[in-house]
Amino acid sequence: MSLLAENRLFPIEPSARALAQTLYAEIRDLPILSPHGHTDPRWFAENQPFPDPAQLFVTPDHYVFRMLYSQGVSLESLGVPRVDGGAVETDGRKIWRVFAEHFYTLRGTPSRIWLEHAFETVFGVTKRLGPDTADDIYDQIADCLPKPEFRPRALFDRFNIEVIATTESPLDDLRWHKMIKSSDWNGRVITSYRPDNVVDPEFDGFQENVEQLGALTGCDTSTWQGYLDAHRIRRAYFKSYGATSTDHGHPTARTEDLPQAEAAALFAKAIAGTATAEDSDAFRGQMLTEMAGMSIDDGLVLQIHPGAYRNHSRSILQSHGRDKGFDIPTRTDYVHALKPMLDAVGTNPDLTIIVFTLDETSFSRELAPLAGVYPALKIGPAWWFFDSPEGMRRFRETTTETAGFYNTVGFNDDTRAFCSIPARHDVSRRVDCAYLATMIASGRLEMDEAIEVAHDLTYRLAKQAYRL
Amino acid sequence: MSLLAENRLFPIEPSARALAQTLYAEIRDLPILSPHGHTDPRWFAENQPFPDPAQLFVTPDHYVFRMLYSQGVSLESLGVPRVDGGAVETDGRKIWRVFAEHFYTLRGTPSRIWLEHAFETVFGVTKRLGPDTADDIYDQIADCLPKPEFRPRALFDRFNIEVIATTESPLDDLRWHKMIKSSDWNGRVITSYRPDNVVDPEFDGFQENVEQLGALTGCDTSTWQGYLDAHRIRRAYFKSYGATSTDHGHPTARTEDLPQAEAAALFAKAIAGTATAEDSDAFRGQMLTEMAGMSIDDGLVLQIHPGAYRNHSRSILQSHGRDKGFDIPTRTDYVHALKPMLDAVGTNPDLTIIVFTLDETSFSRELAPLAGVYPALKIGPAWWFFDSPEGMRRFRETTTETAGFYNTVGFNDDTRAFCSIPARHDVSRRVDCAYLATMIASGRLEMDEAIEVAHDLTYRLAKQAYRL
Amino acid sequence: MSLLAENRLFPIEPSARALAQTLYAEIRDLPILSPHGHTDPRWFAENQPFPDPAQLFVTPDHYVFRMLYSQGVSLESLGVPRVDGGAVETDGRKIWRVFAEHFYTLRGTPSRIWLEHAFETVFGVTKRLGPDTADDIYDQIADCLPKPEFRPRALFDRFNIEVIATTESPLDDLRWHKMIKSSDWNGRVITSYRPDNVVDPEFDGFQENVEQLGALTGCDTSTWQGYLDAHRIRRAYFKSYGATSTDHGHPTARTEDLPQAEAAALFAKAIAGTATAEDSDAFRGQMLTEMAGMSIDDGLVLQIHPGAYRNHSRSILQSHGRDKGFDIPTRTDYVHALKPMLDAVGTNPDLTIIVFTLDETSFSRELAPLAGVYPALKIGPAWWFFDSPEGMRRFRETTTETAGFYNTVGFNDDTRAFCSIPARHDVSRRVDCAYLATMIASGRLEMDEAIEVAHDLTYRLAKQAYRL
Repeated sequence: MSLLAENRLFPIEPSARALAQTLYAEIRDLPILSPHGHTDPRWFAENQPFPDPAQLFVTPDHYVFRMLYSQGVSLESLGVPRVDGGAVETDGRKIWRVFAEHFYTLRGTPSRIWLEHAFETVFGVTKRLGPDTADDIYDQIADCLPKPEFRPRALFDRFNIEVIATTESPLDDLRWHKMIKSSDWNGRVITSYRPDNVVDPEFDGFQENVEQLGALTGCDTSTWQGYLDAHRIRRAYFKSYGATSTDHGHPTARTEDLPQAEAAALFAKAIAGTATAEDSDAFRGQMLTEMAGMSIDDGLVLQIHPGAYRNHSRSILQSHGRDKGFDIPTRTDYVHALKPMLDAVGTNPDLTIIVFTLDETSFSRELAPLAGVYPALKIGPAWWFFDSPEGMRRFRETTTETAGFYNTVGFNDDTRAFCSIPARHDVSRRVDCAYLATMIASGRLEMDEAIEVAHDLTYRLAKQAYRL
Repeated sequence: MSLLAENRLFPIEPSARALAQTLYAEIRDLPILSPHGHTDPRWFAENQPFPDPAQLFVTPDHYVFRMLYSQGVSLESLGVPRVDGGAVETDGRKIWRVFAEHFYTLRGTPSRIWLEHAFETVFGVTKRLGPDTADDIYDQIADCLPKPEFRPRALFDRFNIEVIATTESPLDDLRWHKMIKSSDWNGRVITSYRPDNVVDPEFDGFQENVEQLGALTGCDTSTWQGYLDAHRIRRAYFKSYGATSTDHGHPTARTEDLPQAEAAALFAKAIAGTATAEDSDAFRGQMLTEMAGMSIDDGLVLQIHPGAYRNHSRSILQSHGRDKGFDIPTRTDYVHALKPMLDAVGTNPDLTIIVFTLDETSFSRELAPLAGVYPALKIGPAWWFFDSPEGMRRFRETTTETAGFYNTVGFNDDTRAFCSIPARHDVSRRVDCAYLATMIASGRLEMDEAIEVAHDLTYRLAKQAYRL
Repeated sequence: MSLLAENRLFPIEPSARALAQTLYAEIRDLPILSPHGHTDPRWFAENQPFPDPAQLFVTPDHYVFRMLYSQGVSLESLGVPRVDGGAVETDGRKIWRVFAEHFYTLRGTPSRIWLEHAFETVFGVTKRLGPDTADDIYDQIADCLPKPEFRPRALFDRFNIEVIATTESPLDDLRWHKMIKSSDWNGRVITSYRPDNVVDPEFDGFQENVEQLGALTGCDTSTWQGYLDAHRIRRAYFKSYGATSTDHGHPTARTEDLPQAEAAALFAKAIAGTATAEDSDAFRGQMLTEMAGMSIDDGLVLQIHPGAYRNHSRSILQSHGRDKGFDIPTRTDYVHALKPMLDAVGTNPDLTIIVFTLDETSFSRELAPLAGVYPALKIGPAWWFFDSPEGMRRFRETTTETAGFYNTVGFNDDTRAFCSIPARHDVSRRVDCAYLATMIASGRLEMDEAIEVAHDLTYRLAKQAYRL
């Protein structure tokens, strides 16, 4: 008995399925490159056991708790902490039972696939989760967690991860990365530079953050030049801890390429706290072009993640704070928005800019045409809500014909759910093999080429694009 | 010889087809729940025979006459009445012949499926409609219509309809519902509350309508409080005739949650006839939030249908009036538009708000992410132009991964074409079974679960969401 | 050994594939109608051999050189001319080697399909292009080119082209068409009227162009009436060289139906060079309605191609000029934009307006609903970036259910790459047969109907819509 169908996510038609099996056999065991994600470096630094199953699979996973919340389950009963420190469930087993009772609501979702993959391949669970199996499965996982082979570093090695990138703010001291680096463990855990909190004038505490950036770097961050220098210094510091990329989560894809005097004036308003919403948006846009310029100098890859309306529910933001499953995609324009930056740096083949989208309509209409011609621009993989079998299929179907495979950058998991990493990469590998199998079966590609492409999509393109 | 292929709309690949057959066998005979539609309650009240075949299938069906009109056939020749009372064809047989001559233009459309399903299963027609068969088929249907077993109540019973909701304005006296209720027939025909004509300041006759609403309820609808009270009273009246929902057809999805003084001021402008377009839009938006508040009190489900540009052709509006096939979908934003209402009531798990869309791009980008987290929000089924096999497939493919099955509400037919109701539900059941079969065949679901989901999508979710 | 799989682009499932084979056998040998394209009439007038393989397949094909450019290959190394006349590669073999080295980047793109189709069916090449085969294939093609059977007229005949339309500006003297007409060759090469350079106030040299239009026609094009008359005269001239259509490439789909005095005032601003961006947009919109009015008089079909952001890269526009692969699709509204024109002429069944889109979201939401009711409006085929197997499939899946097959106009290749024409039509025929086969296999259409539809989509609809 297994939770995992051997041929899951492959084409159903037998001849195409056989082609997918052949392709998958070629790449299933390649190491995992995880160049963009949000795991906690402290796990690998301290290598402590993960706490109970609920703390591992339910409480921190917004995909899971948002679905249960949508069905009327309170966040408190799932142990999600309140801003006011009010009481929430802390008994892992109780949380787990609520989870098990509503597990059926995840039918048809990628969370279901990721969870069952982790249950079975990591913890040996082979029964479907439900009210009747909740306690047994809880016990089975809980028994594993304290064992050495279930500690973070052991799982990292067992997952065959070649490199994983975490994400830190410029204000982070990278202490956990320091600890990993100085340990005797060889796992490659690198950081990446995510400066939203010192780049976005609308970020909580922006002014203080910029001041702190100055303190950390010895730059006078009350001036535009000092502020830019401080970025340069922190980027170099991050590079010394392995960073190969920066990452920018903006509400829109807007970029600007303003004269320096205008940029300096916007910055002055931002730190004076007098920037309007429009000023802030322009400033964020300007900073993308500034960061692209620094990337030309220091080689860091620039990642742009636009288009989420963050913290959509006022009441949940008040009660439970940010990042509680209420970030909602919005319609996003790239053609006009990216033009200033692309005019500035887009034809530079030594620069790599990776753009992600939460608006799938932009794949065939905007991103594939743009990435299919600008040397600096690459399309990031299907992301967040679209990091799913159908999302990945649509991604290939709407980008390949215009941008080809070689203006994409392989897969990245973008996750803080450590145990889901092998599952997510496996889904991506299977869906790509299914897509390639269909291309072979419909006479659009030959097997020898498809094997090469499968290898490229699984490994080489990420390695190259992220300079790993 | 049959017009209907036994395995229509199922997957083509034999193993997946077999799975779909198994699933379909489980749910094909479940009763029909039709919680949202536009059949005429008078049919069931008076139980008179339907007139001739053209009056049943052509003249009132905008899907049919819009297609013929697009191919150069005049509306007059199809018997569609003119605003000026000018001459139109009244000979059913002549209309039918024009229809038959152009029946081929419906190839590939859902109308073709619905019509042939009704022709064969209701009237026993097994020949394809065309110029050569037009008269025979006309005669065959015309012969049936006067017979007792083809009267509305007999068809209702034969169609295995458990409950059907019609749609009435607050100004409707519900006389037909009264007559049905007091008859000895047991068919469950309920009303629903559609207040556009007293909520939308841009509706023809809005001021008079609001006055009439006051007269009907004894409320002073010249005041904001009196106007709201009048709604409460009519909602209660509609509930007494079985209503379980309200329904709102707005140009946009805009909602507002204004201070009551501002809302009252907008209302004052609306009844004074001084509301600008912006005022009217804001007022409609405010009324959605007001209606949601009343729903919390009285339990009626709130349905929102935004995004149609009504009566797009000026000349057809002048010659033939409203609802003549010239309502065209437009790009629709939900993320910003629904926020005021969702901030007000969206986290209330006792409230049900069902949102429909005519902009399919919003399914994966906006509606699935929103419905996948807000307890009050559910996604209505593929609607209107998308009430079709491909539309339904895209609906599942773009909503399930983020919102699951359990934030959707089953199928509703939304039709005034009575004989198409079994066909439409059958299409929905087949497409859902095909989707589930594909999920099983690709290892994403197991058969026992899929059977449960098929049952839920066919019956339980509609029953629960609409509180039937 | 062949580059072309016999069953390419057909369904993979054997029974559906067999249906597609049957359909394809019925229509594969029908003559090619190419009513919209950009081949050079000089080819057919002078009938000179094509130059070397690179000049035939690489240097003029923006699909090809944009992909190579996106991968870091310089335009100069591909022989793409510079605005400043600076040095670019002129050695065809060297260009070809760069092309061959990067041929793998076209995997999964329609260019790959078109190129291999032309390599094999036109030049007998059966080896895959790559660094190791580059020289052999170059030689094989180069050897063919000077032979009589590879000259333009011979290829035209061999390609079984019944009629091809080129595209000329009103200022063109149609000398090559004159030469073709007076030759002893019977190939039917017609022109079409593309007046962007005298209609768009933002076009380079607009004022001079309008003056020249006056000189050509003897009209006083400094006046609105004279300007309109000049169009009428040139349209008649173009008709005398076979034109059956006009073609309009505008940034948006905006139309206007202004009072003539307002239109005249806009025109006055345009020729005075004082039109704002908004004025220019309004003027272009007005001219579409004017052109539609002239079409009612002279019978020319009106084609509208909106939605490209032209020459997106400032630096490439400066270095290499227009049309260098940097035209990017943008989000396009049709519902509001087309209303003025449709109110003016949309219900006229004697007029044909064909609308193309680069925004696929508009197919199911806007264009199919509009074309499915307005007699004058038809939907052009999947175009430009979407002239591809997946693009064509999405086109059918998102238009057929609402607009049917009979509000579409068959295929047109829209190409300047002469050798790709048979390939493009073949792709279209195969994808349509695959779509129809799937409809049969899923019980939505019967074989006899599908054969008729296949014939219509391949031949009759284009012939009828373009009045060929």
